[in-house]
Amino acid sequence: MTRAGDIQIDTGLGVTAPKGFRAGAAACGIKKTGAPDVAVLVCETDAQAAAVFTQNRVVGAPVLVSRERLSRGRAMRGIVVNSGSANACTGEQGLADAHEMTRLAAKRIGCAPDQMLVASTGVIGKALPMEKVKKGIQAACAALASGPEADEAFARAIMTTDTRLKQAGAQVQIGGRAVTIAGATKGVGMIAPNMATTLGFLATDASVEAPLLQAMLCRAADATYNCLTVDGHTSTSDTLVLMASGGAGAEPVREGSPEAETFAAALAAVCESLARQIVADAEGGTKVIEIRVTGAASEAEAHRVARAIADSPLVKCAFFGEDPNWGRIVSAAGAAGISSGPETMRLMLGGVVIFDRGAPVAADAKRLETIMRAHEIAVHLDLGAGTGEARCLTCDLTDEYVRINAHYTT
Amino acid sequence: MTRAGDIQIDTGLGVTAPKGFRAGAAACGIKKTGAPDVAVLVCETDAQAAAVFTQNRVVGAPVLVSRERLSRGRAMRGIVVNSGSANACTGEQGLADAHEMTRLAAKRIGCAPDQMLVASTGVIGKALPMEKVKKGIQAACAALASGPEADEAFARAIMTTDTRLKQAGAQVQIGGRAVTIAGATKGVGMIAPNMATTLGFLATDASVEAPLLQAMLCRAADATYNCLTVDGHTSTSDTLVLMASGGAGAEPVREGSPEAETFAAALAAVCESLARQIVADAEGGTKVIEIRVTGAASEAEAHRVARAIADSPLVKCAFFGEDPNWGRIVSAAGAAGISSGPETMRLMLGGVVIFDRGAPVAADAKRLETIMRAHEIAVHLDLGAGTGEARCLTCDLTDEYVRINAHYTT
Repeated sequence: MTRAGDIQIDTGLGVTAPKGFRAGAAACGIKKTGAPDVAVLVCETDAQAAAVFTQNRVVGAPVLVSRERLSRGRAMRGIVVNSGSANACTGEQGLADAHEMTRLAAKRIGCAPDQMLVASTGVIGKALPMEKVKKGIQAACAALASGPEADEAFARAIMTTDTRLKQAGAQVQIGGRAVTIAGATKGVGMIAPNMATTLGFLATDASVEAPLLQAMLCRAADATYNCLTVDGHTSTSDTLVLMASGGAGAEPVREGSPEAETFAAALAAVCESLARQIVADAEGGTKVIEIRVTGAASEAEAHRVARAIADSPLVKCAFFGEDPNWGRIVSAAGAAGISSGPETMRLMLGGVVIFDRGAPVAADAKRLETIMRAHEIAVHLDLGAGTGEARCLTCDLTDEYVRINAHYTT
Repeated sequence: MTRAGDIQIDTGLGVTAPKGFRAGAAACGIKKTGAPDVAVLVCETDAQAAAVFTQNRVVGAPVLVSRERLSRGRAMRGIVVNSGSANACTGEQGLADAHEMTRLAAKRIGCAPDQMLVASTGVIGKALPMEKVKKGIQAACAALASGPEADEAFARAIMTTDTRLKQAGAQVQIGGRAVTIAGATKGVGMIAPNMATTLGFLATDASVEAPLLQAMLCRAADATYNCLTVDGHTSTSDTLVLMASGGAGAEPVREGSPEAETFAAALAAVCESLARQIVADAEGGTKVIEIRVTGAASEAEAHRVARAIADSPLVKCAFFGEDPNWGRIVSAAGAAGISSGPETMRLMLGGVVIFDRGAPVAADAKRLETIMRAHEIAVHLDLGAGTGEARCLTCDLTDEYVRINAHYTT
């Protein structure tokens, strides 16, 4: 059995690192900057596929199309993606455009349209410029290739306000064969953990049947992507897809087997790396803050409290100011609908206890200062009421976040 | 019967405008700036009293003390307040200090300590400098007076990062006598609507028994203070107090009578004015945004959606940027756990429909620009699913909010 901690992550591995995958990208002018904005990821053979989508009631047309296709259980051949426009809240036209994107890509690749998935990210509420998108898909398909350059081209083309491309991969042994799981992700704003947050595309050359693949992806997403929050705002477009080609030639991974454990651990480690890369590149963010809540009356309560702390603008601003203003953390927890009170709470910043059972603890100011100055800060709140646990990965709130989001669309 | 719309609000009326009340304030050095930080409001005679407090599970010592005293139903004589330190999360010492504040004030005024209420606002987690506070209470009691100057001194002494003093009053006829309701409030950050948000002190010279006073105050707070959100963070110190002296000589207000309706309408109008003054002075805020949600499956759903929109940093930043980025509003609603979808939604900005049943509506760009440039902006989202309604008053999110809150304590 392999645990997540044993997995070596390589951020040089991208979507085409697993055998059987090719990727291509192009700039077609959806983005005014001229940056790449269309990408295609293709499996040479039929691939088992799994995905998790946003739980938002308002979803983009691509989510509707991809969700419906995956629900039929058919093997998939690839996914076509655009950035710069989310194709969400675009009515019937948006749905027709999403279908058209898969048709165009399927035609070039030589598969049935319903074997292609589709994802879009960017501004909500604008129709896609389909003439441009058509040319973009053709160019991206013409550029299909494997290797680090293709990986990077794909990862760049899915970016919106991201400042860095985000990819991660891992290799594990399954039945004596090296199997690779790798992928790319994007997202820096409109990030909140209600299922797959943002876009993520994972590929593997392991052989895994779709139902098991889906179960493992859900588990990995719950432990990683769904612990993210940049601004508490769940997007309409969140999509995390995993395709398995079986190209490594390893035996199929069976449910409940040691191989399944190994695969799940590698998948979780890759997702964790991608999720951390998102928070580290969060819009305007300068720090990564990991909030751990323990001792809650239930797991649901732990999640609620971790999320309330992570989403409090006051807490986030204090971290930006490197100010150990712990009263904001305790008051955010208190307002989150908890069954216990301050008299059982214990709060630690970077391992230093600063509030214990209703009263402040005189902490070493110099040590606290050092903790607050670090790029990564650990917050641990024990509610002292039960065994519920949860964690949340977030960032600070800065004037740069406001600047970016006050002037993003029109 | 008098409706809220008929009530004339006078922001020149403060806590001593109703007959029978005096106020005093002093600067004792809790605030490093030397600004006034202790205030006392006293009723010459026994007053019926009502209050609503924060629903945060972590509350300041003054909330514990005042809540307990009011629960006994005894007539009150006044309230002692300090700003600059919230006396919250301060353990046993904090509780002793809150009791001591009421003892010191009661001694000067000549009443029993348990006839005094207490409230504190400011930084959480620091013990009060009681030597300074003692001198402050003595000075504030020595300065007790009635009239506009005393009103203003009281309203200033309760401010923290407020840039403006906030007071409002109204006069109505009860049984042929002029009755006044007036008060002062504070608060610009850590503002979210879970019961009385921030501090508010109301006085009236009407004659109203405590149980009816309490019922009317709850109703008024629900419709006004509890619709506020600046940053979605409910404070540990929220307290809204109303004291009735009966000094106007009017007949007692009876439950269910036309006089009770008149009084309730005036009380609601005063609370509405104070609540709007809070949002208008919100930390860093440049705009007042009123979010109305109608057509929800239930009132609870309407509240949840209004609050989700009002607390979305993305929505708030878009308003700061004067950008009609309505996709953020629709996606915030969609993520709030609603039973309906975009196909029944209709969104209006300043009365202009921009999203209707799943698709964008081509709106007059010039008109939208004018709407977004205004200081007050009305957002109306109809979910098209039922009869549930709610509203939320909020502000935009600006770089100034971040600046203030990144550098507030240590």
